[in-house]
Formats: sequence, C-alpha cells, structure tokens
Amino acid sequence: MEAAAEFPNKEAFRQAVVNTLERRLFYIPSFKIYRGVAGLYDYGPPGCAVKSNVLAFWRQHFVLEENMLEVDCPCVTPEVVLKASGHVDKFTDLMVKDEKTGTCYRADHLLKDFCKDKLEKDTNLAAEKIAELKHILAVLDNLSPEELGAKIKEYGITAPDTKNPLSAPYPFNLMFQTSIGPSGLSPGYMRPETAQGIFVNFKDLYYYNGNKLPFAAAQIGQAFRNEVSNPSLTTIWLFAFQDGHVWLLVSVEVVVFLLLLISIFEVTFTLSRKKEYGLNMKEKLQISPRQGLLRVREFTLAEIEHFVDPDDKSHPKFSEVAKLEFLMFPREDQVSGKSARRIAIGEAVSQGIVNNATLGFFIGRVYLFLTHLGIDKERLRFRQHLANEMAHYAADCWDAEIECSYGWIECVGIADRSAYDLRAHTKLVIAPVKKELGLAFKGNQKMVVEALEAMEEKEAMEMKATLESKGETEFRVCTLGKDVIIKKNMVTISKETKKEHQRVFTPSVIEPSFGIGRIIYCLYEHSFYTRASKDGDEQLNVFRFPPLVAPIKCTVFPLVQNQKYEEVAKHIAKSLTAAGISCKIDITGTSIGKRYARTDELGVPLAITVDSASSVTIRERDSKQQIRVSIEEVASVVKEVTDGLSTWGDVLWKYPTHSS
Amino acid sequence: MEAAAEFPNKEAFRQAVVNTLERRLFYIPSFKIYRGVAGLYDYGPPGCAVKSNVLAFWRQHFVLEENMLEVDCPCVTPEVVLKASGHVDKFTDLMVKDEKTGTCYRADHLLKDFCKDKLEKDTNLAAEKIAELKHILAVLDNLSPEELGAKIKEYGITAPDTKNPLSAPYPFNLMFQTSIGPSGLSPGYMRPETAQGIFVNFKDLYYYNGNKLPFAAAQIGQAFRNEVSNPSLTTIWLFAFQDGHVWLLVSVEVVVFLLLLISIFEVTFTLSRKKEYGLNMKEKLQISPRQGLLRVREFTLAEIEHFVDPDDKSHPKFSEVAKLEFLMFPREDQVSGKSARRIAIGEAVSQGIVNNATLGFFIGRVYLFLTHLGIDKERLRFRQHLANEMAHYAADCWDAEIECSYGWIECVGIADRSAYDLRAHTKLVIAPVKKELGLAFKGNQKMVVEALEAMEEKEAMEMKATLESKGETEFRVCTLGKDVIIKKNMVTISKETKKEHQRVFTPSVIEPSFGIGRIIYCLYEHSFYTRASKDGDEQLNVFRFPPLVAPIKCTVFPLVQNQKYEEVAKHIAKSLTAAGISCKIDITGTSIGKRYARTDELGVPLAITVDSASSVTIRERDSKQQIRVSIEEVASVVKEVTDGLSTWGDVLWKYPTHSS
Repeated sequence: MEAAAEFPNKEAFRQAVVNTLERRLFYIPSFKIYRGVAGLYDYGPPGCAVKSNVLAFWRQHFVLEENMLEVDCPCVTPEVVLKASGHVDKFTDLMVKDEKTGTCYRADHLLKDFCKDKLEKDTNLAAEKIAELKHILAVLDNLSPEELGAKIKEYGITAPDTKNPLSAPYPFNLMFQTSIGPSGLSPGYMRPETAQGIFVNFKDLYYYNGNKLPFAAAQIGQAFRNEVSNPSLTTIWLFAFQDGHVWLLVSVEVVVFLLLLISIFEVTFTLSRKKEYGLNMKEKLQISPRQGLLRVREFTLAEIEHFVDPDDKSHPKFSEVAKLEFLMFPREDQVSGKSARRIAIGEAVSQGIVNNATLGFFIGRVYLFLTHLGIDKERLRFRQHLANEMAHYAADCWDAEIECSYGWIECVGIADRSAYDLRAHTKLVIAPVKKELGLAFKGNQKMVVEALEAMEEKEAMEMKATLESKGETEFRVCTLGKDVIIKKNMVTISKETKKEHQRVFTPSVIEPSFGIGRIIYCLYEHSFYTRASKDGDEQLNVFRFPPLVAPIKCTVFPLVQNQKYEEVAKHIAKSLTAAGISCKIDITGTSIGKRYARTDELGVPLAITVDSASSVTIRERDSKQQIRVSIEEVASVVKEVTDGLSTWGDVLWKYPTHSS
Repeated sequence: MEAAAEFPNKEAFRQAVVNTLERRLFYIPSFKIYRGVAGLYDYGPPGCAVKSNVLAFWRQHFVLEENMLEVDCPCVTPEVVLKASGHVDKFTDLMVKDEKTGTCYRADHLLKDFCKDKLEKDTNLAAEKIAELKHILAVLDNLSPEELGAKIKEYGITAPDTKNPLSAPYPFNLMFQTSIGPSGLSPGYMRPETAQGIFVNFKDLYYYNGNKLPFAAAQIGQAFRNEVSNPSLTTIWLFAFQDGHVWLLVSVEVVVFLLLLISIFEVTFTLSRKKEYGLNMKEKLQISPRQGLLRVREFTLAEIEHFVDPDDKSHPKFSEVAKLEFLMFPREDQVSGKSARRIAIGEAVSQGIVNNATLGFFIGRVYLFLTHLGIDKERLRFRQHLANEMAHYAADCWDAEIECSYGWIECVGIADRSAYDLRAHTKLVIAPVKKELGLAFKGNQKMVVEALEAMEEKEAMEMKATLESKGETEFRVCTLGKDVIIKKNMVTISKETKKEHQRVFTPSVIEPSFGIGRIIYCLYEHSFYTRASKDGDEQLNVFRFPPLVAPIKCTVFPLVQNQKYEEVAKHIAKSLTAAGISCKIDITGTSIGKRYARTDELGVPLAITVDSASSVTIRERDSKQQIRVSIEEVASVVKEVTDGLSTWGDVLWKYPTHSS
C-alpha cells in the first residue's frame, strides 16, 4: 500500500498528489482571482463530493448507529460563552513582531527552525550544544513567553525576511473577532470548535434523553482559527524558460519587491524579458512547508460529546470492538523510546493502558471509521498524550494519527475530558445569608448583599476558597466606599450540579473530535498511485477510493460517437441517477483509453462503456478488468457494488469477462 | 390541508406549532443559558435531522439529477471580493439612533409601524391623510435616507422605548466584520451569501466543464447577516399562578427593571411572592412579531448559479416540467389588483410571462422540490418581482412564496441576474499606450504610466466613459504633483470577457437561491395538526412529515416491559439501523398510547410494536391503521415505505390489518 515507493522522495510524491488534486479541482485556493487568502481553500466539485460522502458515512457510523443526538449551532458565538470555556483568555499563540516592519511570526516556530537548522547544518557543534538544542525542541510547547523570549535573544534570532530585531513574545488570540448587532457593544467570535454549542445545551439534551446517562451528542460544522503565520500559502511564480528545464521559484513577496524595483528603472523590463525567454508565468499554489492543506483558517469539525457518569465509564457495546487489533503507542512506550505496537483494544483497556471502556469503545469505532474510508491500517496509529500534552483536567487522551508525506498527523483527538467543560458553563450560585449579614451590617446590609451578588465568577470562586481556608476575607463594597469583612457563615457560593438518585455529580465528557479536512487529505495520499499507460509513454494517476468515498461512482461512455450509443448511455445515466448513484456521462470523441485515464484520476470505481445496443461492459478502476452485462441489469450491478452489497470479486464471478 | 382551521386565529396556531417545536427541541434559542443572542437558533436533534434530510434531498434533486458542480467555499471572505460584488458599499440598512441612549432602530420599521398604527387606531383620519400613509407604506423600500429622515421628523416619531429624539437615518452595513491574520491590516467579512464563492471560481469551473456552456454550480453553506433590530428575540417570563389560569407576559427588559426596583426596596420580594402564589417561572422564547424564526443572523443557504449563453436561454429538459401547473402571480396581475392564478409553466414561458425557458425550468424544479418536501400546493405561489423590486441588471425574477401564519414568505428567489455577477469579478485591464504617452510626456512618461496602472476600478471605468464621450480627461499624477491631460489614444481600459467561437460575451447567470431555514419553518406549519386523544380529554400534536423529511423514520416499542420483547425490539432496531433507516427504541413502561403520541409529535411515520416473538405490528402515523408483519419481513417493509418505493396504501393491501 506504500504508494510513495515509486517516487524518489516524499516531497515528489506529495507534489504529484497535490498537482492532481489541484488540476482536477479537488481543491482550489480560495479567492484565487484576488490573489487568494492564506489558509483558506475551496472544495471544488470532486472534493466537495468526497467531503459530503465522508460526512454522510460519519453520520451513519456514529450518529445513526450509536443513536447520538445531533445538533447544529451557529458559528457566531457571544464572548460570554467563550470566556466561560477559557478560549478568550487562553486560546492564544505566542507571537513576535519584526520591530521595524511590524510583520508577525510565531515565536515557537522561529526557535524551532533555528534549532533544527543548526543541528542539520552546523557540523562543528559541541555535544553539549547538540543536547541543549535537542532539549529545546523536546520542551518547545512548554516554554513560557519569558523563556521563549530569552532563548530568541540568546541565539540572536532575527526576523527571517528582514533580519530586523524582534519584539518580546506576546499572546495573540486565535479566534476571529466580530461584533453582534449594530451597537458595537456585543463582542463575539467565530467559534474555534463546535463543542461549546453542545455543552451549553447539555441540560436540554439530557432532558430530551429522558434524564438518563450516558448519552452522546454530535455536531458537524465549520470552525475558525485565525492562525498566525502557519498557513503560509505563498503564491509563487514559476518561470518556465523556453528550453523547458530551468524553473525559478520565488515567493510572492520577493516578486512584488522585484516588480517594484523593476518598475522604477524600466517598466517594460518584464515584457522584454518575456519576449527574450519566452517567459511562461503561472501562478501556482505552493503547499507550505508547514502543512499548507492541513493547517487552515476555516475547517469542518465533526465532534462527539459523550456524557457519562464519572463513576461508571463502562460501555454496553464495548465487546463489539474489544477484539480489534491495531497500532497503539502508549505513553510509556513513547517515553522509553519504543515504537508503536499492535494491541487489541480489549487488552489495552483491561491492562489499564486506556483509561476506561467508553474511551476504548470510541478508539475502536474511530479505527473502523477511518479504515472503512480507505485509510491504510499500517499508517494509522493511536498515540496517547504525554502527561505534559494533556490539559490538567483530562483523564486520558489518544490521538488517531495518520502517516502522510508530512509525517504523522493528528486527525482525530479522543479525550476523556472529565467534567471540565460542563463545570465551565455551570451556573454560579451566590446565596447571601441575610440573617447573618443583617446582624453584621445592619443598615448597610442591602449594599453588601448587592455587591456579593454582583461578583464575577473568578472573584466568587476565590472568595469561596479563602472562606474555606481562612474562615473570613476582606471584601470591597463600592457603594459603601470601603472594605468589609465577610465571614464563612454570611454567604454560600456554589455551582449547579446534576442530581441523579440523590447523588450529586457533574457528568464526565468523552470527546472524539474529527478534523474532516485532515482526514480527507491523508485519504488522498493513501489512495493515490501511478501506473504506466498502455503504450508505456506516460505515468497515469489513479485514486483508489472505495465506492463509499468516490466523488462519482460510475462513468458512462459510448464507445464511439454515434447517436444510438449516446441514447443508450443517456438512458443508463438516467437510471443510475434515479437510483441515487452519482454518475458522469462523457460523449466526447476522445479515445476510450484517455477517457478511462481521466476518470481513474478522479477515483471513479466503475466505468460503463456502451458498445452495443443490448449489452455494455463495466470496467473496474484498479484491476482494469471488464465484465459484460445486459443493459437491463447494468444499473443494479453498479448499485450493488457501489452500495457495498457485493464486491467486484463477487460480480466478476457472475458475469462473463470482457477483454478489449 | 388548512390545519389552522381548528385554532381561533393564526397566532394561536403558530403558538401551538412553536410550543411543540421548542418542547421537542426542533429549535433551541442559541446560548440560552447565557440569556441567548437575538436572531441565533440551534437545531436540536429532530430539527437537525430534518435539516439534513432536506439538504440530502436538495443534493439529489438538483446537484445529482441536474449534474451540477458542487463547491464548498469558506465563510471568511476578504474585503476585496465583497467590494467587487457591491456588498461593502450597498449591503446596508438605514438606521436611526436614540440620541440619548444610543439604541439603534431600523428607520423604515419605525416609519412603517407609525403608519400602520395610525391607520388602524386613528378613526378620525381625513381621507387625504389615509391616502398619504398608505402611499408611504407602498413606497417604503424606495425612500432615500433624506426622505425617510424627513418623514420621521414630520410625524414626530421618537425612540419607541424612551420617547427620546432620533438621529437622522444613516446606512449600517449588515455584514459581520472581522480581520484576517494577526496584523489587523486585512479586513474581512463573514459572507452574506454563498454565491460569490462560485462566481470567483467561474473560470476554473468552466474549464472543469470542458469549456462548455451552459453549466450550473451549486453550494450549500452558512451565510451571515448582522440584522439590526429585526430579530427581536425578547425573552419573556411566564408567571403561572397556582390556579393555572392567570398568565402574565412581560418582556425581559421590564422584568429586569422591576427586579432592580424590587431589589432596592426588598430583596426577598420575589422569594416571598413565589411562596405566596406558588410562582412557576419559565423562561420562554417569544417569536417576535417581526418573524423571529424566519429572520435570523446566521442561516443555511443553498444556491445554484446556472451559467448560460445570454443569446440562448433555452433548456434541453424544459419539456419535462412544461406541463406542471401551479399558482403564479405575474407582475401585471399584482399591479392590476388581481390574485395569483394557476398557469402551466410551459404556457407562462411561451406567453412571455416568464422571461425564458431556463428560468422556467428552474421554477418548475423548485415547485417539485418544495411539494415533495410536503409544502402544501395551495399555499405555495411564484410571485414575479415588480419593476421597482428588481436589481437594475436583472432580466426577470420570481420568488417562491409560501403562506404561513406570518403571511406569504419569500423562501426561494429565482432570478435571471444577466451578466452582473461575473462582470463584477472580471479583471480590469489597463493598457497604457507607451508610444503616445512617450510623445506627450517624455521624461515624465514613467510616472504617468504608473499612475494610470494604479487606478482603482471605479476611477478607471469613469476615465473610460469620459474618454469615450469627450475624447480626453484631466488626470492627477501624484508623483508629478500635477494634473495631466490624458487623451483617448493614450490608454485602453477594458474588462476580461469570454471568447467562444470568436464571439465575445459574458455568460448570464440564473440563480435559484434557497433559504433552507425558512423552507423548514413553513414545512413545520404545513405539516402540523392536532387531534383528540382516544379518551377525548386532550388535543395531541402531530407533524405529518413525509418519510423523506421525518427526523426519525420508525420507532420500535415492546408492548410490555419484558425481556423477550425487548430483545426482539433491539434486534429489529439494529437491522433498521444497518439498512440506514434512523429509528428510535422506547423501552420505557409508558402506555403504548402515550408512546404513539410522543412519536406522532416528532412526525415519525411508522411505529413497530413488538407484541409476540414471531410477528409485530406496524402503525402508520396519520391513519393510525396497523398491519401485522413477520419479524423477518419488518425491516424490508419499513424500508420500502420510508424510501418511497411503496406507499402505506400498497403495504396495507398486502398484509393483514391489526386492530388494537
């Protein structure tokens, strides 16, 4: 399955995949005619069909089969919600600014690049220095702004484009900010994840589920992250000289700079040069070294929030997945330098490698989901988060990582987030004890009560902690213009929790979260291969999509241009469409081989060729085998195979083969 | 089909529908636990399922059957794109501000409310005055800011909440603004429609279609409009007193004000009152008089852009819809005060009522789409835009309007937009004629060329017009610090156009645009009815959704709580799910009648009751008829009916009926 074998290196393989994807409009850089926007891509027709197939299968595999409650919430989210969830304060990247031009960079990326570069290119490094640089790379994610800034200073790292000095690192919030309504007084953000829409509806969904746990809610939708410099979609110019050999790749910034220079001295330079060299300029999308198509500013998430009693994380259907065996990479193995190994998920749970059966169940279901789509089992692993990667409230966390030309890519996160998310949206209850306050403050009681009730959550929780540890605390009452002493018996502060059979608890949340765009990109790489054309003079591209994923299930070709064959072809296409099978008819005069090649490149599994008025041939994409089927039967045979009720092997056995 | 007949008035009918929709979580006001945000709604589980069924059918009916190219573009859109499309400058509402509090109102709404109120309540109005007010209501949409302002002043209209004076009307852009990337220098907006994503990709899609016209592209996605005051989602409080009869409706603003008052005098008032009256407070969503669920700030659009040769707007499949007959409301009939009438779409095109066959074809397809979903034919009409409603560039425009309790609601717009949209994104080409410029400006030529090439589109198009009419124009060259005279022969200004067989033209665009949320809301009203319970003591709610739309296709009940029946029920549910049929199992001990009622309220078409180990009953929702089917056959019978291959009538004839 390692399709990349026929290519000299990963980059060449990737370029071949991406060229095909772009030429056939699986992707289009968004707003290309306006020079594009970094980190935004359109799905063109086949890409859009693949995406909608993947999402339909996700709904069938998770929502329908697991009886989940699907919801659909808006992207525009008021600040108060994302304040509670922690995103307003903590969803940030550390940035540094070019002190002269103001250009922004991610501080960790600059330091990472510096260390990697040094380690690769400086052959005279002392062993000590090597160890130091390697250590920095290992702990990069844990560095504080101050530590990052100190290292950047120590190593003399400057702005990559200008060599100007850099500012100290500062946090930049990754959410797209906006304003709700005309007043400008209601700040809002485009949601950075879909999960919060589920959490804020927990109570209603719990009620909808008959006030019973466990249950799962699900949501598919757009999420937005205003990534700093990562999605460095730099438009580049390819200067193809007449001899066809010399290519010059220049980033758009350089081109603009050059053009400015040129225009000052001689405005006709480009034109005359064009003439001289037969210059053929093409604007192209460069997949940035930082995972262009994988790190984008707007993307589709599919998230599940499974709510469960924190004291009972068993799962009734765990036995259905327990025997599945696949590559797992537990925390201990990572730390001790071992490789991922095959473990049955049942074993992993019973040995305590995976925290609980519900988490294990979802890991198993995710494995089935991804491999059904066509992700290669050998390049899929479940990696457990290291202690320092996990949020402090999480009980356990596993990422489904898929290997592609960029390395191992996190495509699904499966986390036991304990009770954090629900607690964040739980209502604060401040109950002043009027009797005690009356005794203590007499005429001022009202002011004290109002001030207590007006406390923000953070202040209230701090007061609660202080009262519990010290028994009393100072408290500013603005309306009185002075501090008063609040004692433990004067107020109770709590957050709402769930009562079930008189036991009070907040449900735990187990969250599988799918980056749909990343899964699809990896699927493209795992499905792509090339093979020689019949006469051996060129390499043809093929996507070996399973019918489930294929953007078009079947093409219909009249063998030659001829009215009778065309009518038969149209008739077949119509019956396929009526059966819900997406098909494409190609009545151009192009040779049949070329038409097959075109359709292989879109990953179409079956091609029907009309070469008589009574029967037709069906060709399978990967084997190139053909069978002959009567016109009456053809739609049902295609439906059988594309619906997955029969394999190609099954029908090959039933119908006469055809050799062209 | 007029389900509202059993209700005293439209408002009571609407309230019954909306109560059911909310209680069963078809809708949830977004971020309710944080008091909600006006104009934002979540789709809860059944609503989300209905939406996804409607979208799946839209894909089958349009994209698949008409071979459209579906794309999926981001919501975040850079300013330059929406500048070109005209949205940055023209997508505005006229607002007025309360001069003291700063609260904003839509100017036209205030004037409209004033006129309506006056006409309704002032019985002493002179005939002249009545005519004047009616005239204002008729031309409201065409008033300029100055005219609106003058009328507001003349009538002494003040801020509705405070009676403070109002500012002069000013334009407010309805797009949600944001900023792309960390620099703050790249303004962007959340798209107000999905169409622009298609237009900017026209060239690629045209190429994908083999450089042939006509073809259609389609997109489903979120759109965003920062409506001013329309989505006045005011949370109201229902105070239900113990006797169950007295209800008090107060807007949230009033409640807040009251609570403030109360807290000053006596903070325990609410508590004591609660005790006294057994006060039962429920926060409820009020459907605003301005069409709450119909006018929202974020919504799903499904748009088609059909590109066609402006000189040939015939359609190869027009004959397939030509005989369809439905309510049409041509412009002339509206102006002359007639009613909508039944016309065959073929007739409408041949008589020139509908501008062309392609537009007519889409009107017919939209009719089929809406009626298949369950929209009542008698409450669906196609209304032609009046001359003053249409954009100046449009050739013809028809709205599919659906009648609901709010009146006739525009749910689909079907417009022949001629070539406007593509022209807006067509590249501006400014070609200075260097020879002429050299002769005229010598050493300054370079500066003049640069200044010419740097012109913005608007300036360039104005220059082009002036050069064509007058032969020359003054032109400011900043780098020279002076104006120069540009003559017609010194520069050519043009916009790129499409060459096909040497004929140069811009394709026309025919755009059917579907407001999915509005269609779904109208569908709810058209599907809702009530009927007496068996013992006649209460009215039960039913949604008569066709299986295509129903959020759940089938429920499975064991007749009594009993392990054997439960196992059979689970087995049946599993086989239904595997067949892709969404079902729900209910093993609670509730009476079978109550369980039927619950599922009728979700519009579930079929209910399976397990009352033996060998056969089960299937009950149809609307007729309440039951048949007996063997356990082996039950899944296939349900699939046949819910996939629309058989009607209930067909299977009723095949299997023995069962009376409970």
